[in-house]
Amino acid sequence: MTALARLREYVREIEEISAAAALAAWDQRTHMPEKGAEARAKVLGRLERLAFERVVSDRMGELLAAAEAEGPSSEVDRALVRVWKRNYTRHRAIPPDLYQRFVETTARAEHAWEKAKAASDFALFRPRLAEVLDLVREIARLIGYTESPYDALVEEYEPGMTASRLRAILDPLRRELVAFLGELERGRAPAVLPRGTYPLDRQRELCQKALTWIGYDFAAGRLDTSVHPFTVGVGPGDVRVTNRYREEDPFSALFGALHEGGHALYGQGVDSSLAWTGLSGGASFGIHESQSRFWENQIGRSLAFWRFAHPHLVRHFPHLAQTKPEDVWRHVNRVERSLIRVEADEVTYNLHICLRFELELELVEGRLGVDELPARWNEAMEEYLGVTPPDDARGVLQDVHWSGGMFGYFPSYALGNLYAAQLTSAAEREVPTFWGHVERGEFGPIREWLREKVHRHGQVYLPEELCRRVTGEGLSAEAFLGYVRRKYGQVYGV
Amino acid sequence: MTALARLREYVREIEEISAAAALAAWDQRTHMPEKGAEARAKVLGRLERLAFERVVSDRMGELLAAAEAEGPSSEVDRALVRVWKRNYTRHRAIPPDLYQRFVETTARAEHAWEKAKAASDFALFRPRLAEVLDLVREIARLIGYTESPYDALVEEYEPGMTASRLRAILDPLRRELVAFLGELERGRAPAVLPRGTYPLDRQRELCQKALTWIGYDFAAGRLDTSVHPFTVGVGPGDVRVTNRYREEDPFSALFGALHEGGHALYGQGVDSSLAWTGLSGGASFGIHESQSRFWENQIGRSLAFWRFAHPHLVRHFPHLAQTKPEDVWRHVNRVERSLIRVEADEVTYNLHICLRFELELELVEGRLGVDELPARWNEAMEEYLGVTPPDDARGVLQDVHWSGGMFGYFPSYALGNLYAAQLTSAAEREVPTFWGHVERGEFGPIREWLREKVHRHGQVYLPEELCRRVTGEGLSAEAFLGYVRRKYGQVYGV
Repeated sequence: MTALARLREYVREIEEISAAAALAAWDQRTHMPEKGAEARAKVLGRLERLAFERVVSDRMGELLAAAEAEGPSSEVDRALVRVWKRNYTRHRAIPPDLYQRFVETTARAEHAWEKAKAASDFALFRPRLAEVLDLVREIARLIGYTESPYDALVEEYEPGMTASRLRAILDPLRRELVAFLGELERGRAPAVLPRGTYPLDRQRELCQKALTWIGYDFAAGRLDTSVHPFTVGVGPGDVRVTNRYREEDPFSALFGALHEGGHALYGQGVDSSLAWTGLSGGASFGIHESQSRFWENQIGRSLAFWRFAHPHLVRHFPHLAQTKPEDVWRHVNRVERSLIRVEADEVTYNLHICLRFELELELVEGRLGVDELPARWNEAMEEYLGVTPPDDARGVLQDVHWSGGMFGYFPSYALGNLYAAQLTSAAEREVPTFWGHVERGEFGPIREWLREKVHRHGQVYLPEELCRRVTGEGLSAEAFLGYVRRKYGQVYGV
Repeated sequence: MTALARLREYVREIEEISAAAALAAWDQRTHMPEKGAEARAKVLGRLERLAFERVVSDRMGELLAAAEAEGPSSEVDRALVRVWKRNYTRHRAIPPDLYQRFVETTARAEHAWEKAKAASDFALFRPRLAEVLDLVREIARLIGYTESPYDALVEEYEPGMTASRLRAILDPLRRELVAFLGELERGRAPAVLPRGTYPLDRQRELCQKALTWIGYDFAAGRLDTSVHPFTVGVGPGDVRVTNRYREEDPFSALFGALHEGGHALYGQGVDSSLAWTGLSGGASFGIHESQSRFWENQIGRSLAFWRFAHPHLVRHFPHLAQTKPEDVWRHVNRVERSLIRVEADEVTYNLHICLRFELELELVEGRLGVDELPARWNEAMEEYLGVTPPDDARGVLQDVHWSGGMFGYFPSYALGNLYAAQLTSAAEREVPTFWGHVERGEFGPIREWLREKVHRHGQVYLPEELCRRVTGEGLSAEAFLGYVRRKYGQVYGV
């Protein structure tokens, strides 16, 4: 048996344990009775520990070294060694005691964050956040970096990404978007659809339909309800999505379904030969987000989509019979200077991310103290978005990420938007009559193009390498800026 | 840290892995999409292997020896050592190769059984059954026994039970039941309720209600639909039941709910201090079955129950408004000489078990060859039940158990019926106005009595020891015979 074959066998064990953990986490958020929560936390902790022990084991180190010495010959085998060496090295760099402290500190910090957010009082969160930040900086130091400790962190979510590269992309993007936002205000804001009530079971049916349109395979997944929508791969042949429904607004659920459906198509489209190798996830968080944003925004918020989807919408909600496809299209493409990231539109969303990226970079590099954070947040909000949070809850306390130590995560959201626009440009060139297909609700050719170009490769390529293979260029904000200028210029008549 | 504390910690790991496996198995039978089946089998196999490796590990042997040397002082600690020593010894006795062969052979045999049953042709199953039987006999030999190889097998399901003790109880029971069946035929068969259609969602609601009546805690469990009803403990605070529904018959689902609810109350009633010790299952399969049979038959098929439940039944199924509680009670207490065990009534059910016990005992002791099995089956059916199977599907091929190597399991079903009657007698003595409570739908005092006497102890006592503690006597068929003679004598007027 070759070293590579032994590595694959060892990795399979980790992946099978992780699949059990994924199922337990899915159940925790969808079906678990409340009194099962404590036991579930123990089971999840146990499974994660069993997997983690193997990832950082001496045996893993030996198998990786032997596999490298053997010289993996295929692209897949090289990726296998790369991905697991990265996991091994990064996790091995953190002593078990420190990791334990990180788990406990972030658990306490998340708890403090919940309370602070409810009380809208940053002071309740500040000491815990400071503890988390200290640990995160220590972890970055242990993992190692050349330029910025931030590089050691963002690598977790976007392999190959650095702070300086992010700055080079996000800084100009921010300036362009701030300027464009000003331009839009000189245009005509689109009309809002009349208010109404949208029965939850009808919304659920429409979401089920929308998932079927884009080619989500219900024989290899399911749709459930949860507090926050999510997608989870429970194993090969089983990629599940969840959604939530609000009676006053059918679009939140519909775009939620398209968003999660985009993630799920990625999971369902990975080549079956990558099963149990650790390569069946996405190339990065940013590339994964590009798939959700592609279906949610590039497709779902296009006029062509609404020419197709409008009759279905009306069939489910007959009181919208008086509307036209264009009305809905305009309604779902309103732009607002708003406080909350998760409710932001396509034009302002990336500004929320730029703000977070800049602040977390300063925090991690030690140029900003936790005490100064709320004031800096509010200043930046005023500068980029022209609004000032009236309280901490709608300001610096709105996101859970920092309490969990997830510094370096936020940029993935913006990268997802940029990659999605780049992929759309490429697909427009390569899929004949791209928008004609959308207008007829024929999503098959588009999905197959994505599967061929992106999905089936899983984690075989690094994110930017994948982008270059598919679009002929590296990560860039050009396609995205062109896209928002075109569409929102049209919506606002500017 | 004492050896006992270390043993507890080690056992906790096994139990947490097993809880993950229980959830994966539950999901497999309730929610899993079809294309997830192959991956799920791998995940289940992995989790079972992780648990099994620990059960039979050298470390387990050392911890058990050290804990024994320490001398466990409490009843619970003694039970902990007893239960895990039994698991360790029994599983260690089987070499990994043989176990692997057993897993593969039974998988093939189950497959062959399915085909043979569909074709109603025992010849298709015979060679596989012979292989399974050879392995089972070899396993019994390796585990060891004094009198009969069957003793080594039945111990898996009923600790402390032996073939000779089963014969001493089941042989006279069989003779009494055969005679009583003859007597009943001289009585008046009860009238059958008019045929009707019972909408599935109404049935589901009634079952949900029935579970609530008996005190099933939906905050610590849930009710789902599956092909075969089952109950599974997914961990402390999470004991789930499933049920199935047939449009033409509401009683099958209702008694299914009471049956599974009985199992589930046992799981929910175990003392929380036994969580993660391996002692939170039932004392035995027979004792577990006594809990399901208690609620299904002793309570659910009583006249007092129908005096309470009849208005609810009518509210859910208004076309039964013309019936009286007594009519329903008679309808659900019809006795028939029938071919199929799982459809059998209380009087004939144990005869089906006696037949299986006798045949599997002869097979395991080598007194009966697999070739002769169908003929012996049919002879015994004629002798005990007075009916002859028209084909193998409705005869020797009806049960899955033997294909899976579960020789020694069948008697637990009969023991469940006997224990349930013994518990009812004790409860009638100890719970004031027992039947008055049932008639008023006040099941709380009865459930609490069971919890106090049976549930909370989990696996701390051996089954017969538990029976003696609760009822003052060991296992006996007297209470059961008294019960069926009384009730069915009344129903049939004999």
